[in-house]
Amino acid sequence: MNHPAMPAAAFARPIPEGLADELAARFGERFTRAAAVCLQHGRDESCYEPIAPDAVVFAHSTEDVLAVVKLCAQFQVPVIPYGTGSSLEGHLLAIRGGISLDVSEMKAVLAINAEDLTATVEAGVTRKELNDALHGTGLFFPIDPGADASLGGMSATRASGTNAVRYGTMRENVVALTVVTAAGKVIRTARRAKKSSAGYDLTRIFVGSEGTLGVITEVTVRLYPLPEAISAAVCNFADVDSAVRCVIETIQAGIPIARVEFLDTACVRAVNHFSKLTLRESPLLLFEFHGSPSSVAEQAESVQNLARENGGTDFEWATRPEDRTRLWTARHNAYFAGLQMRPGSRAITTDVCVPISQLAQSISQTNEDLAASQLASMIVGHVGDGNYHVMLLIEPGSAADLEEAEAINGRLVSRAIAQDGTCTGEHGVGLHKMAFLEEEHGADALDLMRELKRAFDPQNILNPGKIVSLD
Amino acid sequence: MNHPAMPAAAFARPIPEGLADELAARFGERFTRAAAVCLQHGRDESCYEPIAPDAVVFAHSTEDVLAVVKLCAQFQVPVIPYGTGSSLEGHLLAIRGGISLDVSEMKAVLAINAEDLTATVEAGVTRKELNDALHGTGLFFPIDPGADASLGGMSATRASGTNAVRYGTMRENVVALTVVTAAGKVIRTARRAKKSSAGYDLTRIFVGSEGTLGVITEVTVRLYPLPEAISAAVCNFADVDSAVRCVIETIQAGIPIARVEFLDTACVRAVNHFSKLTLRESPLLLFEFHGSPSSVAEQAESVQNLARENGGTDFEWATRPEDRTRLWTARHNAYFAGLQMRPGSRAITTDVCVPISQLAQSISQTNEDLAASQLASMIVGHVGDGNYHVMLLIEPGSAADLEEAEAINGRLVSRAIAQDGTCTGEHGVGLHKMAFLEEEHGADALDLMRELKRAFDPQNILNPGKIVSLD
Repeated sequence: MNHPAMPAAAFARPIPEGLADELAARFGERFTRAAAVCLQHGRDESCYEPIAPDAVVFAHSTEDVLAVVKLCAQFQVPVIPYGTGSSLEGHLLAIRGGISLDVSEMKAVLAINAEDLTATVEAGVTRKELNDALHGTGLFFPIDPGADASLGGMSATRASGTNAVRYGTMRENVVALTVVTAAGKVIRTARRAKKSSAGYDLTRIFVGSEGTLGVITEVTVRLYPLPEAISAAVCNFADVDSAVRCVIETIQAGIPIARVEFLDTACVRAVNHFSKLTLRESPLLLFEFHGSPSSVAEQAESVQNLARENGGTDFEWATRPEDRTRLWTARHNAYFAGLQMRPGSRAITTDVCVPISQLAQSISQTNEDLAASQLASMIVGHVGDGNYHVMLLIEPGSAADLEEAEAINGRLVSRAIAQDGTCTGEHGVGLHKMAFLEEEHGADALDLMRELKRAFDPQNILNPGKIVSLD
Repeated sequence: MNHPAMPAAAFARPIPEGLADELAARFGERFTRAAAVCLQHGRDESCYEPIAPDAVVFAHSTEDVLAVVKLCAQFQVPVIPYGTGSSLEGHLLAIRGGISLDVSEMKAVLAINAEDLTATVEAGVTRKELNDALHGTGLFFPIDPGADASLGGMSATRASGTNAVRYGTMRENVVALTVVTAAGKVIRTARRAKKSSAGYDLTRIFVGSEGTLGVITEVTVRLYPLPEAISAAVCNFADVDSAVRCVIETIQAGIPIARVEFLDTACVRAVNHFSKLTLRESPLLLFEFHGSPSSVAEQAESVQNLARENGGTDFEWATRPEDRTRLWTARHNAYFAGLQMRPGSRAITTDVCVPISQLAQSISQTNEDLAASQLASMIVGHVGDGNYHVMLLIEPGSAADLEEAEAINGRLVSRAIAQDGTCTGEHGVGLHKMAFLEEEHGADALDLMRELKRAFDPQNILNPGKIVSLD
């Protein structure tokens, strides 16, 4: 089976008392070894049982983070940065013990440079908090991974979500980072210029590094003008192929669609039940259009034509904000709707992303695989990017269910990689995808990643054992 | 003065005969030590005198590149990748001798995946050759740095140009690279999926690495649907401030402008003379709009309103392809037009990029500085991105002119960095910007770049002495 063996947390030594004393002296009540707090910091939204760190420090500044990293380096103790705890692949589990460095109280919005379309915030600011702070500026930050994650965490996992088809991912939208390095230095990875060729792209090295190369303390992101007009629509299709074909043709026509989400029949059914909607229960696309009123109308008309040519039915508009919100809230709640298919169950979520030309085949082969399983499942996808999630419901504690879910995921990932796709479009590697990286990148590229890790963190104290193992 | 001292080419040893024998045996006539060929490979479009490599190898495949890199690693001899020779900052000068590895004959278009909007080419394919290969697909590759550079070279310098305001730079448009590493391995940096969170961003590490971390042999890039409609317009302004204000308001309004170029009065005059145009000789913006016919009309109308509010005059349309081509060809030839201001002179081109809110002040301060100089100069800019170039004309061989030009550039760069900008928006570091990197990034960030270089190229054989020096 492809489920990575649960790492040996038992091998972790408790932190040295000398370190605990130093941290207690500096941080007072913001340093804790309370079991409940530690346990809460050793879990995420993954399928893993939590593995608690030895202690938690609540940082309030870059200087706080620097102090913790320096002390941990001195005592050779792991540091695991913690934002909102919404990661999905085991990123936060303290598999080698150490300190959870909680930046969730670093909430300062440091600058909103409206003319430059940038904002700089401390790492604990969440995407919703940033958008609240932007209220009245006419600007917004579009990246929306579902959870109200911290900007630090979203940077660290290279997050994206429903808007990425139009606005890109954190890769494209992080302008600069302030990072505390393993060597105990504070660096800023780039200036605020929109583009630069001034040396190695440190920003992109830290985006997606999952706390393994440095601790992100400040994030400068790109902002966008609020669209003058927004409209949304849903359209049902006879089968997955027709829906995906409609999406491919939309992208190929250069229509600057803001979002296009795919829901399979099981997902539509779950969403109807959970959110009291009456969507037709067949494969469905949920669209959103941003632009000037006439541009939105034109985009929508073009997409409607493409949908019709692909046998789409019931193209339904939601132009009133409340209708739009209802639809998109339902989409956002799809995860919880899915869980309600089997109350008391637990979800395992896959995350492949394939070239869009391979998407229909990928989903269709996955559907065949799912049909042969007794696990309840549903599919939702950011199909404009070729990224989709299978949600598999397992009985908590059932090794057989877990093994079956992981086997399905393993086959899905292998097919995706064979189709020139990736094991993770947006969730990150954490522990859960490590076993697939060699298949995806090859042993030599993985060696290069290890060299990078060794160069930036020679003592292996930064979230050790995640992404690549140095053992 | 800020002009970096010309590096000590004299310290370079000739390549060992053992290496020459091995290369001659493998490559036959594709290995040469002919002085003229070496000299041609030791020059670029920078202000530096050429420094020839000891030999040149013309590679025809990734395997050829691999063989050269392995041999050079074995003999500890530098390797300098060479594309079309159009780089601007001394990237190609063989300051430590070694082999120029010419990939310009690697011309295969390996795949055009029209449905996925990607193409994969060998590193020697130029942007025009790629667009020729795309003929009939309805797709194009937009990145246009002016020169008909190779895709390998454009990746290596993180190039961009006039279209970047809409389509991004090579940072956003390289999907994956095939790279030969210093360790003599061939890696592919990513799959073809549109997004991925599967580990460290190897692609972005090599984009902009200027041949110092690996040799790029294949490039997969994003393609875009050819716009249904294109229109262009020029508009004159009373002063630089008004022109820049118009650009800021255009960007802030979210108008998806495809290009917006600024030309100062001196540049307009030069272009008129060189390209036989009759543009009004005052600060000028040259716009291009891409989209559906109605969207283009709407964008243009919005921009025209913004131009009018900022005192723009003579908003003139060029909707006929021949008029558009004439205008943009004139813009493309601005460099040569500038050289004609003082026939026989040589150009030094600056490349700062600042947050757009700082752009008017940056240009205005630079104009004051230029007014105090006797050097002829002109300014052109990709102003939608805050990036502009001052072209300074110097007398060939005049140390005083060179010193003055470099002093102007030094002050310009320092002001740009103080404004949160960068010393190079798109040309790269090469030799010419190395002296500014510490001011821009800080000593600690630069140390991290050195660690990266050491990790990826422990023998320092890949284009040594560029971007960061390890001495």
